[in-house]
Amino acid sequence: MPIVKVDLFKGKTRDQKREIAEALTDAMVEKAGSSRAAVWVVFNDVEKEDWAFGGELGVDKFPDK
Amino acid sequence: MPIVKVDLFKGKTRDQKREIAEALTDAMVEKAGSSRAAVWVVFNDVEKEDWAFGGELGVDKFPDK
Amino acid sequence: MPIVKVDLFKGKTRDQKREIAEALTDAMVEKAGSSRAAVWVVFNDVEKEDWAFGGELGVDKFPDK
Amino acid sequence: MPIVKVDLFKGKTRDQKREIAEALTDAMVEKAGSSRAAVWVVFNDVEKEDWAFGGELGVDKFPDK
Amino acid sequence: MPIVKVDLFKGKTRDQKREIAEALTDAMVEKAGSSRAAVWVVFNDVEKEDWAFGGELGVDKFPDK
Amino acid sequence: MPIVKVDLFKGKTRDQKREIAEALTDAMVEKAGSSRAAVWVVFNDVEKEDWAFGGELGVDKFPDK
Repeated sequence: MPIVKVDLFKGKTRDQKREIAEALTDAMVEKAGSSRAAVWVVFNDVEKEDWAFGGELGVDKFPDK
Repeated sequence: MPIVKVDLFKGKTRDQKREIAEALTDAMVEKAGSSRAAVWVVFNDVEKEDWAFGGELGVDKFPDK
Repeated sequence: MPIVKVDLFKGKTRDQKREIAEALTDAMVEKAGSSRAAVWVVFNDVEKEDWAFGGELGVDKFPDK
Repeated sequence: MPIVKVDLFKGKTRDQKREIAEALTDAMVEKAGSSRAAVWVVFNDVEKEDWAFGGELGVDKFPDK
Repeated sequence: MPIVKVDLFKGKTRDQKREIAEALTDAMVEKAGSSRAAVWVVFNDVEKEDWAFGGELGVDKFPDK
Repeated sequence: MPIVKVDLFKGKTRDQKREIAEALTDAMVEKAGSSRAAVWVVFNDVEKEDWAFGGELGVDKFPDK
């Protein structure tokens, strides 16, 4: 039943998403008692220019090297 | 006044979105008594690799044929 | 698979929510081709002081009579 | 940097939330490489009458015993 | 047209919300060129036990004095 | 601590986002008493075909000239 929505910077590979989704689901099953099939995880890939911290865009604060 | 946010798998055509938005709006007008102009519908197209069910990514669970 | 999140003013009865949820689900099944069981609707009841239109709180713009 | 938003049925105790938040944070640190301090988890407690599955409210589908 | 959703700790007074909503709306009008009437601000009051930072609930990290 | 999520039509430049993020952050610092570093702003760029007003898609209601 739970919905777990994750906003994170763009750039994770599909394999990383597999692992993250599985670990988040495990967390909900083990700690919240959720039925496994009922856990939905949705990723929202956010561009660095679409996230600001203290008024500064991620693209400025964390520039690609 | 209501905001209706819809997360769904990417791939709907513009025409489908037209029909879905209209039907969701009708539902709010008829059943919630909303004023038509005040109903906002926002679609969030989600990639199959960004949605997990029971810890399994949509791209694995529902592969394209 | 779709998630339909509805922000609306607090005050709907349970019966109204039953009807709204059913109508929104019908819309997704008929127009988006969703499998009925896979449609989740989540209501978010918003207080009139927690929603502003053009910078004016709902509690000021739409006062209870 | 990641935001993890969790919609779940109301009724978890504070201790359960402590454990869930910690496990979700662990998951993001270990699998997404997030810095621990940068992981924010936000719970959204949802009433059973505010969540519908297949058009049926949680309060009808999963009545309290 | 923009929707500005604000998650913040519970406890703001109605007057504070009036001022916050107005200032956020001003920001969108002045910097994003939004039409004033089209700016919607929605507040989501979050309990301290419903927000975790680095895996620690707000109620533990920022206890009331 | 606050999270400010902004849904707006796609098409803002990076410079506009810089200014909007800064102005929204200022608003939270000045009116909500937030600590500057703790204000996160996340933009969600929405395509005109993904937003409906009164049941009509933005792409139809506000066509590009």
